[in-house]
Amino acid sequence: MQTIKLSARTSTAVRVARGGALEVINTHGSQVVDTWAVLQSDPEHGLSMEHTRAIHGRVYVRAGDVLFDDRRQPLLAITADTSPGIHDTLIPACSAARYRELGYQGEHDNCSANYCLALTSVGLPVPVRTPGPLNLFMNVPVDVDGSFKFSAPVSRPGDSVLLEALEDVVIILSACPQDMVPVNGESQEPQDAEIRVYEPVERIQTRNS
Amino acid sequence: MQTIKLSARTSTAVRVARGGALEVINTHGSQVVDTWAVLQSDPEHGLSMEHTRAIHGRVYVRAGDVLFDDRRQPLLAITADTSPGIHDTLIPACSAARYRELGYQGEHDNCSANYCLALTSVGLPVPVRTPGPLNLFMNVPVDVDGSFKFSAPVSRPGDSVLLEALEDVVIILSACPQDMVPVNGESQEPQDAEIRVYEPVERIQTRNS
Repeated sequence: MQTIKLSARTSTAVRVARGGALEVINTHGSQVVDTWAVLQSDPEHGLSMEHTRAIHGRVYVRAGDVLFDDRRQPLLAITADTSPGIHDTLIPACSAARYRELGYQGEHDNCSANYCLALTSVGLPVPVRTPGPLNLFMNVPVDVDGSFKFSAPVSRPGDSVLLEALEDVVIILSACPQDMVPVNGESQEPQDAEIRVYEPVERIQTRNS
Repeated sequence: MQTIKLSARTSTAVRVARGGALEVINTHGSQVVDTWAVLQSDPEHGLSMEHTRAIHGRVYVRAGDVLFDDRRQPLLAITADTSPGIHDTLIPACSAARYRELGYQGEHDNCSANYCLALTSVGLPVPVRTPGPLNLFMNVPVDVDGSFKFSAPVSRPGDSVLLEALEDVVIILSACPQDMVPVNGESQEPQDAEIRVYEPVERIQTRNS
């Protein structure tokens, strides 16, 4: 098992072999982690929130769910979740344009740029449009009239989500740098998270233990 | 004003100048029309359901709404809607994989292929991943627990939606060929729709009349 510190406002890209897993630990409890995955064999294809929603018939995902790619192939499975299970599939990664809209002057860190940086760091091509991420721990409750608001996470320090790789994938994670609305908690302070990466053999040992 | 018949199961791509508009008429009442738009000046960028949802704080769009692109620029506005106003932003375009999943043997017509064909027909590049469309007249009610179902449209024969172009765009429309679930009505029979394209000068005349 390999441990990676995901520093506040930054991103990383991690290769995970089929049968392995990646755990996202919300060290401080209220940090949103934007999460993507692409196929190692065909990195222009990857996790799709639209297809995942349509297949499950739900705007939320939860423990036990398989997550699908844009060709409706199973890519990841949420095999464990110690948090209250509130994650978002509806909202795009934050971007330079989003922070300009909020009145920020200059270049704010953002998850779209983080996504591109992480892909580049492992030699993968950067798409023109950033795919919609799985926003782990992000709390966007949808009302019955279809309206929603950006609320503070309900996750707690140490809560974690375990993603099992159903194919050889690259998983990209960005500790969301949003500090102008309470997406990362009422204090609006982006925090570190921790990533643990399990090899397929470790997963088998865990299952048998 | 130019009138285009959008035959059942087919697609078209239409250039609309800034200030012009495109009207989608649901001739038979229950036909879903998958709708995209890309910038003429930069066709890799276009309409984004994720960004549009996030900006409005709603999973639905309605008359009066501006629709945004993936850089959060205003691209279209829904300036009129004679239907009950039920449209979808959550569901991906149907694809070959979707019909295989439903048990269809062979190559079923699908909105993703239609999108690519329509782009090619006007000499535009085809993206690897089909962006999430605005699914006009598609009825996917979201329950308070986040679950949703694919329901028959509530629109009526002759209902129409008017989309004003806020930039020089290409609008791509696909009359959804779904005939295995009641997305296009309980009869599951894809139908024609009609498209009307208004030049900017006609729009000005309409406003002043």
